[in-house]
Amino acid sequence: MKAEALKQQAARPENPGRSDGGPGTTGSTALAGVSRRRLLGTAGAAGAAGLALGAAGGAAAHAAAAEAAPTALSTVGSGVVAFHGEHQAGITTAMQSSGHLVAFDLSPGAGRKAAAALMRRWSALAAELMAGRPASREDTGVALDAGPSSLTVTFGFGRTFFGRTGLTARRPAGLDPLPPFSADRLDPRRSDGDLWVQIGADDGLVAFHALRAIQKAAGDTARVRWQMNGFNRAPGATARPMTTRNLMGQIDGTNNPKPSEPDFDRRVFVPAGTEHGWLTGGSYAVVRRIRMLLDDWERLSTAKQEGVIGRRKSDGAPLTGGGESTPLALDELGPDGKPVVAANAHARISAPEQNGGAAMLRRPFSYHDGIGPDGTPDAGLLFICWQADPLRGFVPVQRKLDRGDALSPFLRHEASGLFVVPGGARQGEYVGQRLLES
Amino acid sequence: MKAEALKQQAARPENPGRSDGGPGTTGSTALAGVSRRRLLGTAGAAGAAGLALGAAGGAAAHAAAAEAAPTALSTVGSGVVAFHGEHQAGITTAMQSSGHLVAFDLSPGAGRKAAAALMRRWSALAAELMAGRPASREDTGVALDAGPSSLTVTFGFGRTFFGRTGLTARRPAGLDPLPPFSADRLDPRRSDGDLWVQIGADDGLVAFHALRAIQKAAGDTARVRWQMNGFNRAPGATARPMTTRNLMGQIDGTNNPKPSEPDFDRRVFVPAGTEHGWLTGGSYAVVRRIRMLLDDWERLSTAKQEGVIGRRKSDGAPLTGGGESTPLALDELGPDGKPVVAANAHARISAPEQNGGAAMLRRPFSYHDGIGPDGTPDAGLLFICWQADPLRGFVPVQRKLDRGDALSPFLRHEASGLFVVPGGARQGEYVGQRLLES
Ligand code: HEM
Ligand code: HEM
Repeated sequence: MKAEALKQQAARPENPGRSDGGPGTTGSTALAGVSRRRLLGTAGAAGAAGLALGAAGGAAAHAAAAEAAPTALSTVGSGVVAFHGEHQAGITTAMQSSGHLVAFDLSPGAGRKAAAALMRRWSALAAELMAGRPASREDTGVALDAGPSSLTVTFGFGRTFFGRTGLTARRPAGLDPLPPFSADRLDPRRSDGDLWVQIGADDGLVAFHALRAIQKAAGDTARVRWQMNGFNRAPGATARPMTTRNLMGQIDGTNNPKPSEPDFDRRVFVPAGTEHGWLTGGSYAVVRRIRMLLDDWERLSTAKQEGVIGRRKSDGAPLTGGGESTPLALDELGPDGKPVVAANAHARISAPEQNGGAAMLRRPFSYHDGIGPDGTPDAGLLFICWQADPLRGFVPVQRKLDRGDALSPFLRHEASGLFVVPGGARQGEYVGQRLLES
Repeated sequence: MKAEALKQQAARPENPGRSDGGPGTTGSTALAGVSRRRLLGTAGAAGAAGLALGAAGGAAAHAAAAEAAPTALSTVGSGVVAFHGEHQAGITTAMQSSGHLVAFDLSPGAGRKAAAALMRRWSALAAELMAGRPASREDTGVALDAGPSSLTVTFGFGRTFFGRTGLTARRPAGLDPLPPFSADRLDPRRSDGDLWVQIGADDGLVAFHALRAIQKAAGDTARVRWQMNGFNRAPGATARPMTTRNLMGQIDGTNNPKPSEPDFDRRVFVPAGTEHGWLTGGSYAVVRRIRMLLDDWERLSTAKQEGVIGRRKSDGAPLTGGGESTPLALDELGPDGKPVVAANAHARISAPEQNGGAAMLRRPFSYHDGIGPDGTPDAGLLFICWQADPLRGFVPVQRKLDRGDALSPFLRHEASGLFVVPGGARQGEYVGQRLLES
C-alpha cells in the first residue's frame, strides 16, 4: 500500500497546478524529495507536527509538494506543507480547492516595531496551523478533526507597507506601481494594501479557520482592507492527471514554468545578490480580480472560444495538434494561409517567446460571489502570478494582452494588488525578519 | 480492492451528515442498496451514464447514498447519486462540500404551461448532470473531466408559485407563511421565491457548472431572485468517521433522525393519502440564512460555549457524558442541583422530546461571503431542514428557540424561505409533473 502510494507519487506530472493522479496516472519524472514529502503527507497532523523540518528543504521541498499532492482520499486531510524553507509555501504548492485572499492595512500608529511583532505572531501561527495544530488554547475548533489538508499561509508586503514602517529605503523597485491598462476597472477599496495573506487548503473549514485565526492575530495592529474567496477543483474530482479548468471551461495552467526546468527559480524567485539582501528567495505576487463576462463568452461557439485561446477546450492541446503538453506551433499556417493560432490568440500573445522570455507562474483561484440582480454571475479568476520581477513578468505580458488579446473583451479587471513576498522563514525565524530587523 | 471498498462502505455509520470513514472506520448497520450504490459510485461518469436506474430504488437508494459516500480519493469524482426515485436527491444524500441555493421567480406572463415546460427541461438537465454528462452540445465545459462528484439538484416550489400558475387550489397548507420570530432580521430580496433549486457536489467546479446550466435553462421563463453559496467539510479531510462541524466549531447534525429509524420516512416525507395526491413522497424545506455573530461567540470560553449547546465541543458528546451518539441525559443534575444540560441549552430546547416529537432533518451548508468593512465575517449557516410538515417540524422548534435559547443571542436570521419539494421523478417523468399536469 505504501509502496503503491509512492509509485503513484513519483508518477505524478510536474505541474504546480492541481493534477489529480488516480490509479491510472502516467507521468514522467521521479523527483527528489518525493518520498520525504510523502512521509510528511501520510504522517497525519500529530505525527507530522513532531517532525522538525530544516531550512534545507527549501525549494526542493516546495517543488516536491507541488508535484506530490495527496492521491488517496484518506490523505486529503493529512496533506502537510512545510512552513519553513527557502521560499514561502503557497507558490509552488499544488493548487488547493479552497482559498482566501486577504489584505490588511496597518493601524494608525503601528510602525516597524508593531509590524515586526505582527509578522512574528503570524509566522508562529501559520507554522502551527500548517502542521494541523490549533491556533491557540481558545481555538475556535472549526478545523478540529480535519488534518492540515495541505494548508498554506503566504505573506506579502504592499508598497505602502514600507512607508508606514519607515523602511522606504529598503523598498524594492519591483514594487513600483503597476502601469494602468486600458481594460482596468479597478475598485481601489478592493485593491492594494499594506499586507497581503494568501490562504489555501483542500478543505473549506480548514481554510476558513486559518483566515479567522490570522484576522484575530492581527489584533489592533492591522485591519482587514479587503478579502476574497476562491476555489479550485477538488482533489480526486478528476480521475486522470490534468491541469484544472477555470470558469470559462478552459484547461488553465498548462504552459506554466515547471519547477524542474533549469530557469524556473530564476524566473520565479529573487536570486541572491540583488539590490536588497532581505529579498533573496522572495517573489512578487500580482493579484488581479478578473471578472469573466460569461454571458458574452458562452454565446461564442466552442470553435470560436478555441480560436480566442489557440488551444482546444476538450483537452487543452494546441490548435496546431498534439496533446496538452505539446508546444504551440506558432508559425503553422492553415489552408487559408493564416496562422492556425491566430495573431491575437491569448496563448500566442502571452507566450514567453513573444515577450522576451518574460515568464510567470500562474496559480489562481476561481471565484464566484453569487448572481447579481441583473442575472449575471459575479465570477471569474482571482489571478495570482508569481515572478522574480513584475517588470519582466506580468507587466509586459498584460500590456500586450491589453492591446490586442482576443480574450480581453470577455474580461474585466476589477481589482489589483502587487506584493513582495519575502523568502521563507528559517527555523526560529519569522517571515520578513530580514527586512524588519536588520 | 473492490471487496475492500465494499467493506468500508458497509461499515459507514448511518448519519446523512458527512461522515468520512477512512480505513479505520467502525460502524454498525450494513445497508440494503449499498452494493448497488457502490457499483454506481465506482462505474465512473461514462459507465454510470449507461446504467438505467429504475424508480424502484427510491428511498432506499437515497438512504444508501447518504450512508455510502465515496471513501477513496479516486471516487470523489465518480460518486453518482440517482436522479430518479421515490424522493428527490439532495435530502438524505450525504452532505456535499460545495453547494448553491438559488431561487427564481416566474417571469410575468409565464403560467402553468411555461412552468411545466421549465420543470421538464430542468429535470432532464438534472438527470444528465447528475450522471456526469454535459448539459448540452454547447456545454460550458467547466465540469469536463470531473465525474459527477455526487452532484444533486433538488427542486422546490414556494407559496407564490401556486398563484402564478393558477394552482392555488392545489397549494398545500404546509406552505402557509412561517410566523414571524422575534430574532428575524429578514431581507425580503433574499427570501422566498416561486422556485427553489438546491445544488450540491463534492467539487466546486461541478457545482458551479450545474448552477450555470440551471440558470441558462430557465431561459425567459424564470429569473434569479436570489442565490447563495455554501460549503461543508471536504471528503477525506477527517480521517475518523464523524459529523461535520459548523463555523462555530461545533459538531452539528449528531441527533438528526436516521434513515434507518422506523419513523424516519414519516417525519421527513409526506405520506400517501394526505390532502394532495401529488405531494406523496415530497418534503418541505425550510431555508434560513443564519448569520453567526462570531466575534461575540468566540469571546465565550469553550466551557461557556459548551453550556450554550449542552454538548462538548471536542467530540459532540452530551455534557452528561458518553460519546457523540450517547443520548442527552436531560434530567441529570449537577453538584449545584441544576440540570447539567441547562434549561436554555440549544440541544435541550430543540430536542424532539421537548417538542411533542417534532423532528426535522437538518442538512445545512456553511456560508462565508467575505469580511465586511467593519471587520466582521459575513458567515454562518445556510440552515436547511426537511420535514413532512413544517408546522410539526421547524415552526414549533424555532418558536421555542426564539423565546429562550442560549444560542439565539449569537445568531441573526437574515433570510428565509419555505418550499414544498415534490417527490422524486419516476423514469420518463419530470419533477412536479403530478402537480402540473393532472
Ligand atoms: C481570466 C483571465 C484569464 C484567463 C481565463 C486565461 C486563460 C488562459 C488559458 C486557457 C491559457 C492556455 C493554457 C495555459 O498555458 O495555461 C493561458 C495561458 C497563459 N496566460 Fe492566461 N488567462 C487569463 C489572464 C491572463 C493574464 C492577466 C495574464 C498575464 C498578464 C496571462 C498570462 C498567460 C500566460 C503567460 C500563459 C502561457 C502562455 C504560454 O506560455 O503558452 N493570462 N491563459
Ligand atoms: C446557526 C444556527 C444553528 C446552530 C449553529 C446550531 C447548532 C446545533 C448543534 C451544535 C446541535 C447539537 C448537535 C446535533 O444534534 O446536531 C444542534 C441540534 C439541533 N438543532 Fe440546532 N443549530 C442552529 C439552528 C437551529 C435551528 C434554526 C433549528 C430549528 C428551528 C435547530 C434545530 C436543532 C435540532 C432539532 C437539533 C437536535 C436536537 C436533539 O434532538 O438533540 N437548530 N444544533
